[in-house]
Amino acid sequence: MGELQQKGALAKKASVILAKKSSEEKNKGLIKAADFLLQYKEEIIKANEIDLQFAKENGIKGSLIDRLTLNEKRIEAMAEGLREIAMLEDPVGEVLSMKKRPNGLVIGQKRVPMGVIGIIYEARPNVTADAFGLCLKTGNAVILRGGKEAIHSNIQIVKILQNALEIVGLPKEAVQLVEDTSRETAKEMMRLNEYLDVLIPRGGAGLIQTVVQNSTVPVIETGVGNCHIYVDDKAKIDDAVSITVNAKVQRPGVCNAAESLLVHKDVAEIFLPKVYDELKRYNVEIRGDEKVRGILPDVNAATEEDWGREYLDYVIAVKVVDSIDEAIEHISKYGTKHSEAIITEDYSNAQRFLEEIDAAAVYVNASTRFTDGFEFGFGAEIGISTQKLHARGPMGLKELTTTKYIIYGNGQIRQ
Amino acid sequence: MGELQQKGALAKKASVILAKKSSEEKNKGLIKAADFLLQYKEEIIKANEIDLQFAKENGIKGSLIDRLTLNEKRIEAMAEGLREIAMLEDPVGEVLSMKKRPNGLVIGQKRVPMGVIGIIYEARPNVTADAFGLCLKTGNAVILRGGKEAIHSNIQIVKILQNALEIVGLPKEAVQLVEDTSRETAKEMMRLNEYLDVLIPRGGAGLIQTVVQNSTVPVIETGVGNCHIYVDDKAKIDDAVSITVNAKVQRPGVCNAAESLLVHKDVAEIFLPKVYDELKRYNVEIRGDEKVRGILPDVNAATEEDWGREYLDYVIAVKVVDSIDEAIEHISKYGTKHSEAIITEDYSNAQRFLEEIDAAAVYVNASTRFTDGFEFGFGAEIGISTQKLHARGPMGLKELTTTKYIIYGNGQIRQ
Repeated sequence: MGELQQKGALAKKASVILAKKSSEEKNKGLIKAADFLLQYKEEIIKANEIDLQFAKENGIKGSLIDRLTLNEKRIEAMAEGLREIAMLEDPVGEVLSMKKRPNGLVIGQKRVPMGVIGIIYEARPNVTADAFGLCLKTGNAVILRGGKEAIHSNIQIVKILQNALEIVGLPKEAVQLVEDTSRETAKEMMRLNEYLDVLIPRGGAGLIQTVVQNSTVPVIETGVGNCHIYVDDKAKIDDAVSITVNAKVQRPGVCNAAESLLVHKDVAEIFLPKVYDELKRYNVEIRGDEKVRGILPDVNAATEEDWGREYLDYVIAVKVVDSIDEAIEHISKYGTKHSEAIITEDYSNAQRFLEEIDAAAVYVNASTRFTDGFEFGFGAEIGISTQKLHARGPMGLKELTTTKYIIYGNGQIRQ
Repeated sequence: MGELQQKGALAKKASVILAKKSSEEKNKGLIKAADFLLQYKEEIIKANEIDLQFAKENGIKGSLIDRLTLNEKRIEAMAEGLREIAMLEDPVGEVLSMKKRPNGLVIGQKRVPMGVIGIIYEARPNVTADAFGLCLKTGNAVILRGGKEAIHSNIQIVKILQNALEIVGLPKEAVQLVEDTSRETAKEMMRLNEYLDVLIPRGGAGLIQTVVQNSTVPVIETGVGNCHIYVDDKAKIDDAVSITVNAKVQRPGVCNAAESLLVHKDVAEIFLPKVYDELKRYNVEIRGDEKVRGILPDVNAATEEDWGREYLDYVIAVKVVDSIDEAIEHISKYGTKHSEAIITEDYSNAQRFLEEIDAAAVYVNASTRFTDGFEFGFGAEIGISTQKLHARGPMGLKELTTTKYIIYGNGQIRQ
């Protein structure tokens, strides 16, 4: 039996036990795991050094090295994350509705764990603790398949988490790591329908597309964001400038950062020079269409390809549009249904944008950077769903549960 | 451009228009469609006769012929179904929650249409009107791919529905039929991610597995049901008999009918002869394990294969178990997570069964036949989901919608 079959079977068993555990018992596991991460941080840092050494030897670039790095501060943040999850309300067991039917049947809908969740992710080893915490809190077993760059760190972290579970009397197979990081095991995991109830990819567009294209396990698609800011002709110009700059530069490497800017022709001449000055302070490269370049002659020309790009970098594509209609059409064509914003003081345009834009989060007069579990008030999140089934937008604890109908009868038969 | 690409693009356009229509406008379309089905019933019956002729010439068996047949009464039922959908509450536009965050952002979660729904189904032409009605009510465009046996009926029905839409000013591409019923178009439809937001298969286990295995479009899996009745040692025997018989014979061809019966050893000798007598009145074939045959010597022997079968017929597999633990284990191993029932007067056993059985609907002292949109009080349903993502159990109008976050700001940027 292969590694995945074996781990799948163990996870399934663990999930049955976990489903019956109280919030208190699960929280004890989270707190103990947080304690152990701190207690054994030296071991984690040592394992991480092996990964870093290997990465450097293989000429891996700086931003990836940064994501891969675990230091004392980051391990403390991982532990703090687990403590915060312990403090959130447990969604499991909530009865969403319960009604008595005319025939006397009492039908309730109850929130229950999914069962076994698979997570495929890339270089960040802190996802390991984070995903474990969210899954444990919601009574799910989790099978983690991280990137090969972080394998030594991940093995060490999962070992510590499992020890914590055992000590508090929870099944240690509630969290398991796939240690064979070949592409074959990833593909096998995508077809592990016998054991996995859902598969969540966390990472870049390439990873997510591979999972969507190959998985027979139900997938929750997360995170690719070609987010737009549309500056309407009735925009407050100063707000438009500060929101655009914030959405672009506050953290350019994340999915809710703005990648494209659409500007109504009637305000282009006032707005563009102002936003240009501010973006230049952050060394943002601007790629404009012809009309933009008529106003800002020294910006680069945008090509068709730029409208569809998720740069995740200090680059923004800028286009002048004739109307809100053109803006909505452009976003419908090139957007990824993540987060989209209109800046306007016009009531009808604001309402139209909110209604007609098909995205997980649609904003009026605010930065797209707010699409985030903490900012929405849900607490920790497992990712941001850009699909329409099950979950859309930031996915917190509730989105890691399903429901079942529980029906109380006293002999009812169907007529 | 192939038929599906073309129809996908038209459906997408129609869905944008539909999403903005009021409940009143959509209801007008439903009522007009109901009127037209009655007004043009002769045309439908004529088209259906071609399908029936063809089916008979090809030696298609009786139960399929029955499902394929449309007569005046069935067309009236189709029309009545549309009128009932018109009377249901429109879930679109409901704001599920709206909260003000500390930074002044007001974040609401609003129910919106999915967009374009694909439905792949088999012989019943009445699904055509039914699926159209549920999708139109929820503001979704629908692409229907029915079986080749019903193609003439389906073409005629969709033509009538489209005429009704046009007359009331709704886009006629809100409902489209795939006329090429080859396997290739079905496969192509499963990969039409560009246009389809969700794909729902309705039909037998083979169809559903094909869709789950091949679709890259998100799928809602419906309906395979190997449902169990477990008669506990503390069961009221008369209730146990009537519920078992009802769950088996009231309509054996549907997914929520019981296929397996588990009996606690302590009541087997009293219960089995009683249920035997009743089941025999309906000519139900009983396939029992050794212990069952010890009590009922003339029943057939059950093989390992019988425990996993969805007979959809007058056949039931029966097993004697030593304990509720064995019953739960058996159901976990062979069940399809559809509908499961325990018959007991024991409080703790009832609670355990409700908690530990992983299924869409779990019953105490009632027939599994109640797992149904109408019986649950939701009105019409598009199917019964046996998966855990998005929808579980009977799927009514709400399950054909998604949500989006709408965020009202006044210049907020992220710190």
